[in-house]
Amino acid sequence: MKKSLGAKTFLYPTPVLLMGTYDGDNKPNLMTVAWGGICCSVPPCVTVSLRKATHSYGSIVSRKAFTINIPSSDQVEIADYFGIESGRNTDKFKKAGITEVKSDIVEAPYGEEFSIVLECKLLHTIKIGLHTQFIGEIMDVKASQSIIGKDGRPNLEKIDPIIYDTGGRNYFSIGKNIGKAFSIGKNTK
Amino acid sequence: MKKSLGAKTFLYPTPVLLMGTYDGDNKPNLMTVAWGGICCSVPPCVTVSLRKATHSYGSIVSRKAFTINIPSSDQVEIADYFGIESGRNTDKFKKAGITEVKSDIVEAPYGEEFSIVLECKLLHTIKIGLHTQFIGEIMDVKASQSIIGKDGRPNLEKIDPIIYDTGGRNYFSIGKNIGKAFSIGKNTK
Repeated sequence: MKKSLGAKTFLYPTPVLLMGTYDGDNKPNLMTVAWGGICCSVPPCVTVSLRKATHSYGSIVSRKAFTINIPSSDQVEIADYFGIESGRNTDKFKKAGITEVKSDIVEAPYGEEFSIVLECKLLHTIKIGLHTQFIGEIMDVKASQSIIGKDGRPNLEKIDPIIYDTGGRNYFSIGKNIGKAFSIGKNTK
Repeated sequence: MKKSLGAKTFLYPTPVLLMGTYDGDNKPNLMTVAWGGICCSVPPCVTVSLRKATHSYGSIVSRKAFTINIPSSDQVEIADYFGIESGRNTDKFKKAGITEVKSDIVEAPYGEEFSIVLECKLLHTIKIGLHTQFIGEIMDVKASQSIIGKDGRPNLEKIDPIIYDTGGRNYFSIGKNIGKAFSIGKNTK
């Protein structure tokens, strides 16, 4: 018998994504987003949801592009910082010591120090409520050589991404490999 | 200097969500979804993306409701199973030994053995490409007493959710608590 907790955003896990944008004055910004994820395989698309009050909201609307930077667990302090300061009056790249790189395919910046970055072009804007959802087509993924495995793909343990705990408002690291997808369920089948 | 990996769905982490639906014949189904997440705080909403070819696609379209069940790491085998068998001709609840519970607020079933469940009413349908995105309003969250912490909220370590590794196609468990959100970034600020 389960207990009702009410209508809450208790989904586990949620990611810690740093969204990179330029505003109308070409000022770069990074903002922490936990409301997001992949939403289509072909074309590859990612979704991020923002409140209209944020500085990044206007930047996406005007530039129609953004990047998604994946911070690692040893970058957890600056990942949190990008969520608690507004980019309206501050150069958060500079303050956090992150090197701004202008994407060569979309009008958005990313941080050189993040090991994996998705460069996205705005496809859809869906007004839901407090948050508006932006769907971006992933035009390219740029990765540091250090997190690419022998198979040529990103290695999750090397990326060492952060998990956001929506109930307790904590950050967690990744644990251990517990099985092969599309494989370990075959016994039940 | 980063290396281009092409336009791929390399986002980290992605969740492992089990979506519960009834089809037109009231047959219950659970399907594994990694393309999803929270997309609005007010009203609380969750998004899941499905291919049109899946059995669950037609069920959501006709019943306008679904549940999101969060499996724990010790349920990883059945979590994978729900992704590799179609519910078209099989009662996957029965085969996996999961007890079907009919939600009392939306027209969808959930699994009693999953410690936390979101009951959702379909709000928006967005056709993107191979995947269609369904946005559901979270009408209630039901949780097992065992995963509720002293603060009355779900405890992430007790839920022990699974992470899907999109590059390597592995499942991972949660690691350790690495900091307090909206707090540890204050030094940088």
